[in-house]
Amino acid sequence: MKVQKLEHIGIAVSSLDEAIPYWENVLGLKCYNIEEVADQKVKTAFFKVGDIKIELLESTSEEGTIAKFIEKKGQGVHHLAFAVDNVEDALGDVESKGIKLIDKAPRLGAEGLSIAFLHPKSTFGVLTELCEDKNK
Amino acid sequence: MKVQKLEHIGIAVSSLDEAIPYWENVLGLKCYNIEEVADQKVKTAFFKVGDIKIELLESTSEEGTIAKFIEKKGQGVHHLAFAVDNVEDALGDVESKGIKLIDKAPRLGAEGLSIAFLHPKSTFGVLTELCEDKNK
Repeated sequence: MKVQKLEHIGIAVSSLDEAIPYWENVLGLKCYNIEEVADQKVKTAFFKVGDIKIELLESTSEEGTIAKFIEKKGQGVHHLAFAVDNVEDALGDVESKGIKLIDKAPRLGAEGLSIAFLHPKSTFGVLTELCEDKNK
Repeated sequence: MKVQKLEHIGIAVSSLDEAIPYWENVLGLKCYNIEEVADQKVKTAFFKVGDIKIELLESTSEEGTIAKFIEKKGQGVHHLAFAVDNVEDALGDVESKGIKLIDKAPRLGAEGLSIAFLHPKSTFGVLTELCEDKNK
């Protein structure tokens, strides 16, 4: 397995309304989409820098993983997402190398991507998402 | 000011010797350079994924910022570095917008880049580096 490219960076924020103006007015990037992913209890705001996406994540519930992450570590980078040719094959490959999986099978993520997370205990602290754009 | 692209992602690890095999053998990326930056008390290992660099950072001292980061937050993403046309102009611009700076003036970073850090208290938790390649 070889990851093809960095697809996006997920960043946990307490409030999209507060964080978006920083990314727009200070860093000069434009928010091009806001989307709620109900089953992950998040509202996301997307930016592009070069061909990389920045995904700000605000929890829509106190019980959500983003809320818990912020409670434990504070706001900041939550995960890195790498594009792979085939998520299912990639999961089998990394699991065979001893990597602990959060998702045993791909599931649907924001923007219609097929996604799966690797456990940060196996990835030297970096919560890692593998993703595949099946629309391509 | 507008950031041009994501130049690299800095990731704090306890041991390069332990982390490099994960990035090489599991994610399929190749470490192309290892460099010590003495004044920052770090040893860094570089990978490329697409045109983005991944910079693993191991502290060479218990007093180093990377060692302290790991003690507080654990291993994981330490900073995001964005390329700008001119670091000095960019610092002036973001400071005029109320952003707190760690570096009031550019300094020399790994790979000969001119760099400066913005304070994560002003950037919604993301330690942010602005960098400029003066060799280009």
